[in-house]
Amino acid sequence: MMNFKSISKSMLLLSSLALSSITLTSNSANAANNEWITLGTMAGPIPDATHSQPANALLVNGNTYVVDAGDGTAGQLAKAGLDIKNVKAVFISHLHFDHTGGLPAILSLRWQTSAQNELVVYGPPGIKETVDGIFSFMNYGAAGNYGVPGQIPNPANTNVKVVEVADGTTLKLEDFTFSAIRNTHFSWPENSPEWKKFQALSFKFELEDYTVVFTGDTGPSKAVEQLSQGVDLLISEMMDIDHTVNKIKLANPRMPEKRFKGIHRHLSKHHLAPVQVGELAAAANVKKLVITHMAPGLNTPEEVEFYKTQVTAEYKGDTTLANDLDRFELIRK
Amino acid sequence: MMNFKSISKSMLLLSSLALSSITLTSNSANAANNEWITLGTMAGPIPDATHSQPANALLVNGNTYVVDAGDGTAGQLAKAGLDIKNVKAVFISHLHFDHTGGLPAILSLRWQTSAQNELVVYGPPGIKETVDGIFSFMNYGAAGNYGVPGQIPNPANTNVKVVEVADGTTLKLEDFTFSAIRNTHFSWPENSPEWKKFQALSFKFELEDYTVVFTGDTGPSKAVEQLSQGVDLLISEMMDIDHTVNKIKLANPRMPEKRFKGIHRHLSKHHLAPVQVGELAAAANVKKLVITHMAPGLNTPEEVEFYKTQVTAEYKGDTTLANDLDRFELIRK
Repeated sequence: MMNFKSISKSMLLLSSLALSSITLTSNSANAANNEWITLGTMAGPIPDATHSQPANALLVNGNTYVVDAGDGTAGQLAKAGLDIKNVKAVFISHLHFDHTGGLPAILSLRWQTSAQNELVVYGPPGIKETVDGIFSFMNYGAAGNYGVPGQIPNPANTNVKVVEVADGTTLKLEDFTFSAIRNTHFSWPENSPEWKKFQALSFKFELEDYTVVFTGDTGPSKAVEQLSQGVDLLISEMMDIDHTVNKIKLANPRMPEKRFKGIHRHLSKHHLAPVQVGELAAAANVKKLVITHMAPGLNTPEEVEFYKTQVTAEYKGDTTLANDLDRFELIRK
Repeated sequence: MMNFKSISKSMLLLSSLALSSITLTSNSANAANNEWITLGTMAGPIPDATHSQPANALLVNGNTYVVDAGDGTAGQLAKAGLDIKNVKAVFISHLHFDHTGGLPAILSLRWQTSAQNELVVYGPPGIKETVDGIFSFMNYGAAGNYGVPGQIPNPANTNVKVVEVADGTTLKLEDFTFSAIRNTHFSWPENSPEWKKFQALSFKFELEDYTVVFTGDTGPSKAVEQLSQGVDLLISEMMDIDHTVNKIKLANPRMPEKRFKGIHRHLSKHHLAPVQVGELAAAANVKKLVITHMAPGLNTPEEVEFYKTQVTAEYKGDTTLANDLDRFELIRK
């Protein structure tokens, strides 16, 4: 039995560890809530000073899932009070590096801290080769381990499994049913070799009492609209295309005008303008809309208001333009 | 010639881009100053909620260099107003993943934004294999590129060069003379195969008018003390070993006690306690000391005071316990 003295001692220890142990404290506090956390809300690939690159956490029944993993996802998880060692799975929507650049850190830091739980990486065709590349990146460092003679290091791929998903995949997992469909972020001709090889996917997570669709990066898409029909929560990308092209111009003053036109065309077909986000949410009749993956980001209240006006002209439901580390409870009200 | 109307229009455009173009503005403002920026000041591998993983920027003659690149370095560079496309070289002190986990994002996001400048990665034996692994991680995604038929993507290794350095390397580079020596972060027996294969290095950067030594991760080391003799600035690691072991215990309640003793022994030999940081700075008679790579981090003013007292008991010179994004001008006063 714990006497008063030992309680005080424990309390002192806990108090001195309070800040560094934020991970554990928050984890247990959140165990009961299913949540979607927008870890990084800025579209890449240009790193931003105020918003982290695309990444999300999905918490279900106390388990942590990561949905896309841009640069800095490991740090953003810590900021959200989540432990990388407890990540059960990572879902990658497509293989653009602003959505995968933080995955090497997650896998290698988990290895370095001897994570015991298996982590599964789900992603489109190519995810196996991509993750094998991460193991190649890790091999030499892992062999050196902590520089202690006689230590036998674990192989780089310890406790990591990779599952390739594609257009039409449905998987019944422990905490939800997961489905993937092809969206319009890529414009390969139907049934070309590239059409199959390079897929950009949107995801549906059907929890016991709640359903979430995550668009990933996409342009206007009937398939995404269909996937989203009547869901409780739509997490949608958004892009202010003119503003983004101006930003690219500013960063690349010597780029030929023709190139900018190409970029503009690419962005218009492969992303959703604010009005189109509203149209998607309205057509799919979703119960709630959270907008993330913003470009060029939300830096002023005026900007937020400007985008919100355009979206809500089309969609009259509950709408949030998310910031990094915003949390959304997955409960029907 | 620009008339008033077009000036106003440009100013409006500039004003609407002001926040998103922070990169460019700050870059030009800093072009004249040589600086050391502590991008991430927390020792890994456990991601921290308040401090980013080990990473630094060295600005010389308007050029940007990165020294170690933990998770989230690309984002930290953006926060410091620096453009990843302008990074001229990355220096990696050793191949632990808390020092390399952010490198895949830097290389892949540079690729994705068509960086035109060459970037050189300098690092210990194994850096070539490590960076080749990053290219393997990138290959599939790079082949898919932006999903536009007919586009020919650049190979993943475009504009990246790798230079292996080791104990005793000295290189005369454009902006400084760079030297590397082996420190005591690893404890391989001298002249064993591992001794050569796995090297943890400390670095010296001799600018025209200023000299910086970066310890990387190290335990007490005569070689580091010698390298640091009389330098203008010593950037040193530091670790509160008891506190760190307690933190590991808290995060791994089921780990056997024997394992903790091993970890304690490893940390004591391979890192510098606060007093030892002071001893190093005093013995090397350095002009200024900046402490980074803290474990378990600096979360309260009391903690900062506690560590500072221990360091300054040994070293009487100018001492700073750095936080993320602190900037130090490299000018002799």
